[in-house]
Amino acid sequence: MNEFFQPISGLETPRFAGLSTFMRLPYVPPGHEHWSELDFGYVGVPWDGGTTNRPGARHGPRQVRDSSAMIRSVHPIRRRSPYADCNCADLGDVPVNPADLDDSLKRVEAFYRKLSRDGIVPVTAGGDHLITLPILRGLVQEPVGMIQFDSHTDLYRGYFGGYRYTHGTPFRRAVEEGLLDPRRTVQIGLRGSMYDTEDIDFGRSQGVRMVMVEELMERSVPDVMEEARTIVGTAPIYVSFDIDFVDPAYAPGTGTPEIGGPTSFQALQAVRGLAGTNVVGADMVEVSPPFDPSGGTALIGATVMFELLCAMTVGKEPP
Amino acid sequence: MNEFFQPISGLETPRFAGLSTFMRLPYVPPGHEHWSELDFGYVGVPWDGGTTNRPGARHGPRQVRDSSAMIRSVHPIRRRSPYADCNCADLGDVPVNPADLDDSLKRVEAFYRKLSRDGIVPVTAGGDHLITLPILRGLVQEPVGMIQFDSHTDLYRGYFGGYRYTHGTPFRRAVEEGLLDPRRTVQIGLRGSMYDTEDIDFGRSQGVRMVMVEELMERSVPDVMEEARTIVGTAPIYVSFDIDFVDPAYAPGTGTPEIGGPTSFQALQAVRGLAGTNVVGADMVEVSPPFDPSGGTALIGATVMFELLCAMTVGKEPP
Amino acid sequence: MNEFFQPISGLETPRFAGLSTFMRLPYVPPGHEHWSELDFGYVGVPWDGGTTNRPGARHGPRQVRDSSAMIRSVHPIRRRSPYADCNCADLGDVPVNPADLDDSLKRVEAFYRKLSRDGIVPVTAGGDHLITLPILRGLVQEPVGMIQFDSHTDLYRGYFGGYRYTHGTPFRRAVEEGLLDPRRTVQIGLRGSMYDTEDIDFGRSQGVRMVMVEELMERSVPDVMEEARTIVGTAPIYVSFDIDFVDPAYAPGTGTPEIGGPTSFQALQAVRGLAGTNVVGADMVEVSPPFDPSGGTALIGATVMFELLCAMTVGKEPP
Amino acid sequence: MNEFFQPISGLETPRFAGLSTFMRLPYVPPGHEHWSELDFGYVGVPWDGGTTNRPGARHGPRQVRDSSAMIRSVHPIRRRSPYADCNCADLGDVPVNPADLDDSLKRVEAFYRKLSRDGIVPVTAGGDHLITLPILRGLVQEPVGMIQFDSHTDLYRGYFGGYRYTHGTPFRRAVEEGLLDPRRTVQIGLRGSMYDTEDIDFGRSQGVRMVMVEELMERSVPDVMEEARTIVGTAPIYVSFDIDFVDPAYAPGTGTPEIGGPTSFQALQAVRGLAGTNVVGADMVEVSPPFDPSGGTALIGATVMFELLCAMTVGKEPP
Amino acid sequence: MNEFFQPISGLETPRFAGLSTFMRLPYVPPGHEHWSELDFGYVGVPWDGGTTNRPGARHGPRQVRDSSAMIRSVHPIRRRSPYADCNCADLGDVPVNPADLDDSLKRVEAFYRKLSRDGIVPVTAGGDHLITLPILRGLVQEPVGMIQFDSHTDLYRGYFGGYRYTHGTPFRRAVEEGLLDPRRTVQIGLRGSMYDTEDIDFGRSQGVRMVMVEELMERSVPDVMEEARTIVGTAPIYVSFDIDFVDPAYAPGTGTPEIGGPTSFQALQAVRGLAGTNVVGADMVEVSPPFDPSGGTALIGATVMFELLCAMTVGKEPP
Amino acid sequence: MNEFFQPISGLETPRFAGLSTFMRLPYVPPGHEHWSELDFGYVGVPWDGGTTNRPGARHGPRQVRDSSAMIRSVHPIRRRSPYADCNCADLGDVPVNPADLDDSLKRVEAFYRKLSRDGIVPVTAGGDHLITLPILRGLVQEPVGMIQFDSHTDLYRGYFGGYRYTHGTPFRRAVEEGLLDPRRTVQIGLRGSMYDTEDIDFGRSQGVRMVMVEELMERSVPDVMEEARTIVGTAPIYVSFDIDFVDPAYAPGTGTPEIGGPTSFQALQAVRGLAGTNVVGADMVEVSPPFDPSGGTALIGATVMFELLCAMTVGKEPP
Repeated sequence: MNEFFQPISGLETPRFAGLSTFMRLPYVPPGHEHWSELDFGYVGVPWDGGTTNRPGARHGPRQVRDSSAMIRSVHPIRRRSPYADCNCADLGDVPVNPADLDDSLKRVEAFYRKLSRDGIVPVTAGGDHLITLPILRGLVQEPVGMIQFDSHTDLYRGYFGGYRYTHGTPFRRAVEEGLLDPRRTVQIGLRGSMYDTEDIDFGRSQGVRMVMVEELMERSVPDVMEEARTIVGTAPIYVSFDIDFVDPAYAPGTGTPEIGGPTSFQALQAVRGLAGTNVVGADMVEVSPPFDPSGGTALIGATVMFELLCAMTVGKEPP
Repeated sequence: MNEFFQPISGLETPRFAGLSTFMRLPYVPPGHEHWSELDFGYVGVPWDGGTTNRPGARHGPRQVRDSSAMIRSVHPIRRRSPYADCNCADLGDVPVNPADLDDSLKRVEAFYRKLSRDGIVPVTAGGDHLITLPILRGLVQEPVGMIQFDSHTDLYRGYFGGYRYTHGTPFRRAVEEGLLDPRRTVQIGLRGSMYDTEDIDFGRSQGVRMVMVEELMERSVPDVMEEARTIVGTAPIYVSFDIDFVDPAYAPGTGTPEIGGPTSFQALQAVRGLAGTNVVGADMVEVSPPFDPSGGTALIGATVMFELLCAMTVGKEPP
Repeated sequence: MNEFFQPISGLETPRFAGLSTFMRLPYVPPGHEHWSELDFGYVGVPWDGGTTNRPGARHGPRQVRDSSAMIRSVHPIRRRSPYADCNCADLGDVPVNPADLDDSLKRVEAFYRKLSRDGIVPVTAGGDHLITLPILRGLVQEPVGMIQFDSHTDLYRGYFGGYRYTHGTPFRRAVEEGLLDPRRTVQIGLRGSMYDTEDIDFGRSQGVRMVMVEELMERSVPDVMEEARTIVGTAPIYVSFDIDFVDPAYAPGTGTPEIGGPTSFQALQAVRGLAGTNVVGADMVEVSPPFDPSGGTALIGATVMFELLCAMTVGKEPP
Repeated sequence: MNEFFQPISGLETPRFAGLSTFMRLPYVPPGHEHWSELDFGYVGVPWDGGTTNRPGARHGPRQVRDSSAMIRSVHPIRRRSPYADCNCADLGDVPVNPADLDDSLKRVEAFYRKLSRDGIVPVTAGGDHLITLPILRGLVQEPVGMIQFDSHTDLYRGYFGGYRYTHGTPFRRAVEEGLLDPRRTVQIGLRGSMYDTEDIDFGRSQGVRMVMVEELMERSVPDVMEEARTIVGTAPIYVSFDIDFVDPAYAPGTGTPEIGGPTSFQALQAVRGLAGTNVVGADMVEVSPPFDPSGGTALIGATVMFELLCAMTVGKEPP
Repeated sequence: MNEFFQPISGLETPRFAGLSTFMRLPYVPPGHEHWSELDFGYVGVPWDGGTTNRPGARHGPRQVRDSSAMIRSVHPIRRRSPYADCNCADLGDVPVNPADLDDSLKRVEAFYRKLSRDGIVPVTAGGDHLITLPILRGLVQEPVGMIQFDSHTDLYRGYFGGYRYTHGTPFRRAVEEGLLDPRRTVQIGLRGSMYDTEDIDFGRSQGVRMVMVEELMERSVPDVMEEARTIVGTAPIYVSFDIDFVDPAYAPGTGTPEIGGPTSFQALQAVRGLAGTNVVGADMVEVSPPFDPSGGTALIGATVMFELLCAMTVGKEPP
Repeated sequence: MNEFFQPISGLETPRFAGLSTFMRLPYVPPGHEHWSELDFGYVGVPWDGGTTNRPGARHGPRQVRDSSAMIRSVHPIRRRSPYADCNCADLGDVPVNPADLDDSLKRVEAFYRKLSRDGIVPVTAGGDHLITLPILRGLVQEPVGMIQFDSHTDLYRGYFGGYRYTHGTPFRRAVEEGLLDPRRTVQIGLRGSMYDTEDIDFGRSQGVRMVMVEELMERSVPDVMEEARTIVGTAPIYVSFDIDFVDPAYAPGTGTPEIGGPTSFQALQAVRGLAGTNVVGADMVEVSPPFDPSGGTALIGATVMFELLCAMTVGKEPP
């Protein structure tokens, strides 16, 4: 266990004291002397330029850092700290550009390309869901599988007269660009009224497995996750967790809430069901603090990010 | 499909742009040139003069309109738009009188009598639950059945020394006035501490079927809805959805919340379970924006109103 | 039925009128002429000096009193008022000292010692969880069993360099002081990341039965409560309900929320599952109004306090 | 100094502890053994049935009581406690009827008639502004003068087709009923857009002195108050303080806010300028907690009520 | 007085009833049968793609419409309705594109070009301050003067490495493009810490008159407005009112608040000081509802829009 | 100008990106390689164990850091950056102990003793006002003068039966301990109801100059500050700014608000009036985020901290 990479304990220093970093880990931005020792890194992408409705996800990383002071280091079921086994830190935020969509996509891609080259596996806090596209561009050399927790497919063709880059289109683009292997892609928690069925039709034609929330509720989360693990197998996958997967009673702070979703307990079950897969990167996106008076959404986001890391590090078998 | 009666799509015009109407449908108030083409209509009754505790439901219709910009036109399970099959619009608000209870009841009754005569089936946003009484007076010529989703029976005799018209009494009055057939009336989701058992005793003596939330949770929503459909049969029914049916974690913005209620997922199951019945009118009441810091209650209300319309239009068999 | 000890009815006086007391019961502080007639008493302990993270539980009793105006007198399942069978009142708040931890612990102990001597069974509103320690000191002559609903064990050894009295340590102290019998102690709902496993190890070594939330969800609340009743038997127990037992979507207003918890429906099931046990005192702690924009947490707290009283009075068999 | 009538000191018992009464004074409702010793009384009228726009003033008295725990007993300028010179208490709330406007007006009138007979001078917390009408009916035998702090004249003829009793009409009615002497009536702080000039024309024709906020700001509050004192002289007057007199940045929690108003400092200057007049009753109305996220409006309301009492008791000369 | 163009009165229909339009005026979008009769129009531009910090101004028009239900038709000082003298309506929102900055600028420009051609003078609700640039492009054929109420100059050269279009740069661009005559431009209320002095230096070199808030407070608003009127003379001017001109205690709901600003009373004085100038268009921008828990910012925005119209219509001499 | 000690510019990196430090300055905790180069330092003391009423100031430093991202580096009047002339950084938080008052006082004292020895002048964010006592203990070798902006004297003898250490007593203790020279101590902005006159009497007897808010408003802030500078002269002084100096409309997020206070504009005038004095340390205390729904209080706090630094560095003559 590397002492440098341990989080500050709330038993020693109160959680409300000190600078906010993800999980109270050390801050190790690119260029830091400990950069080369990193195995994993929490990253923020404070950008919401792809948002078609309610903005605010640009403020997500900061609030998730604040809330993550609540997260202690030992996992309640595994009874073990992920930081005992690997070196992880807060890598800071990608320096995005709120005044230009294209420039921001390039900046994000470059940051993740560097991570990929340096062998650091990222767990990202968004930002809106469009950020997953440049993350994949930077991270992936050949098509990866994906498990996506979301109430929307984000497979739309375009908005507002053919505009191709919004938070409703990243995975359409990712499939088109050969970043994702649609036959090893599973979308879980889909629900809510739809513009039309164009996104669903596209996904189906490509072989994406789509699990509507009704199926999820009827079969149970562990059962669906077992199927998902079978579909993605042991080849590399990316995991994308849109906070609107969770019901808005739990996570009101998001831009496009859809009622009738899973509980936070089910969200934890879902992420824990990733154990045994081969995750090369993960994100948790769409936390929008201005729409969350009590801050509970960011707490779910922080907990999910911790669980994502645990799923990737502590074991390789489902719990 | 009548082009005039289609909602504005969020793929074309952002959801936050333009005037707020229910579901972004056209505004067709009485006297409008398209009035005679209407099959269904969303109506607001911004009135809370029957409220015995926390007021604010008078502001419900406006916030539900705002939130309904989130609702797209295609149902996620049926994969079909209700607006493809029938003409529906926002009929505006009934011009109620906050300074006089009796006058308001008369204004509401008159509005719905006109709808009844013109063959328009209403889906109403309240307002407090007392509004269902004048709606029934205007809408119904002979006793109808009812499926009521609610945490309270609203069957009390009177308040504050015998005052007969409050949001705790509408269905006592409706039974007394011959508007409701109690033997074809089902109340689902009842819970919470009670003043006494006078309302329950009355309902039982009249033959009302009362499903406490404990029974609902144990048997499951689809199972209870199957029984409800059997009880009401195929004769005309009215559907009344009090937002306090849903647990206050999901719907805090209401005047008389009761903990221990169903989730929004269960609420959707419940409304979808209406398919196959013969609904002559429906309402969603008691959304009180001042008690809802994040606005999630109105989003549930708007979604429920959309599902009510779908249940009444898209098919006649349970899903 | 003693008329003096009946709550004010919302059918007679609106719930928002009049002074706020617990459940709108009469206010009977020590020294009151009716003191000697009391069987039970609701008490407030407005103190949060043991809080290691977000404070505010000192404001809990006042907000719970306000919210308790929503609670009527008749239990929805038993269809009976607990106040018909016994004399209960609002005993006021213990006069604590926010400027001194030790002095406050002594003041609380003294208050409960008097209750114990006068044969009044308390249902307390906290305050943070450290208050349970002086309550037990005042109330208990020999070790009692305990059923604790909580997301944390509160069995830690100390904080911030060995400080022994915080809301994370009361039950470690209570076991050490011989106030609790650990083999008749059941902790239900445990979850969330941990500093280490020191608290769990201590509890296990002492024979405490710990039910993690995952077990609770899988087995169901009634099933776990049946086991709990078996463990504690019919000898005296204390019941401690930390509001963070409930998921923060339901109860955001608390200092140390942990996601993935039970619903308010499950909370009611849990408290109702106490029927048949021999409860000599109960509390509901950690409601922190400043972190609860919509006030729903206090409503759960008030309802739980009512259910606790019902579980202790109306019957002795599980429902 | 009568010990019984002293408020609880925050130096002894923390302000957040104990039951909420106005200014932490003893609770002395009608029938109480100390009733006959009272000189003054704080009263709540939790009623908003006259509200034409945003409701919620029915919750005003409770929140003002809570906030009044902030108010200590000694006036900062006079350096003296009003409770040293006279007996004052919290008389509780008038038991109004939210389901009936006429019945409520009668209940309020009867309560104040009793106060008048028993020689108790009331300082009232509303409730909406219509409550001043029945207060005057109960309190006054012959026309009194009035100093009214308000952004509206409340002199309108009627609403919604001739309805005569709303919070926009009380002083029209009071003049018509001979309760107010319009030539000894001063309205201060008027502003905001108007329906028409009918109210202004009526007031002018009756001799009411109306001070628009522009004049108030230009001349200064003490200067205007000097004129007001000259107009009302030493004969009996009533004082009515609508919280919307204060700018909504200071007092957002009200039903009909008008921007461009005085500060809370100016509000204190205004009330202190009453010293030397002959006040037979006073109220502070229109605090609506649901529209006040931070509770500051109620704190202004509580402070104003304290200053009203001081203006009436501690001295008879302007400061 | 044209009956069609009169707002709905709150004396007839409660303010919370009916669809939300600016000032409750009729909705007359382009193509409407009454379009050609319009003299003035309230327009919404729901776009915040130029925002460098906290977003949300895209939601401004909707909330300003809602709040504008508070505004009655008669001006409190002039005692006259602006709608008696001219035809004004709600023209709806410009259909902007949240996914593309350039496309949005073009859409806004086109809308205002049409207004200019059709002789309709716009009073616009933003949106962020970048929208004023395309408004000017559409509205203006030769350089106009400007009176700008703002805490920032918005004269910066660029952001984030030379990006030229943000809400911090519109007037730099407008001067460069020959839309504004800098020597007839007055900026009032400037304050707050600065990145550097580049914007100030540019403005000064061009002849812009900049009134810091310190000068405004010392000299008084009417005195500064008199100077401003002298500077701009009687040739055409545009008026731009950034809501962050007002102190954030009054207007917290904005993206870049600066403390130490004017009151809402001073804001009204400022707008009223425009009377006598030759205004060819006006806007009120930067209201961001997600940062305004009590909604007071939008009420100021709505009142300012009403006062802007009055200043442009009711008279031509300063008050 | 030392490049290392420059804040991150919002023109380069958006304000919402990156870790939160005071004013976006580098984080230089004790032991950091650049520590010895420091002239000034922003410090947090996240502790509220001296609070007698509403807690939460422990969360102040974190929220002030977040809000301080709004503060740019150049002062609007001086047109110069304080960071151009001296080295300043964020020194982090003092590691306090929420479970023990005495231990916390010692930890704070030790931290400031180190600063004093190392020649670093601190600008501190509290925390409640009791923290000023250990700051003075650590910082001061002989009695210093003080200018205190506050609505309370904080000169009380004790609370709750003689407890000597609360946020109402620090300056009584500081005078008793010889840390403060009362004859060179000026308290500005005092107001609000009082427990008694014991604190005022003590202060007067010691020679403290107390300026009530009424005097401040009548004379103007610059005039009072001129007197204050004369009283303290050029010998060392400490400056303590309690955020409750500002009116609660501006700064609601504090534990003990008093209405009728100065505006934020007047607060800036006050701090700027310090120029020319010899300040050896300063603090800004009592920001309590849980009571501040819109976050404006922390923005005032951050701005005041920036102005304090400017007053201490950029010039030595009043503006």
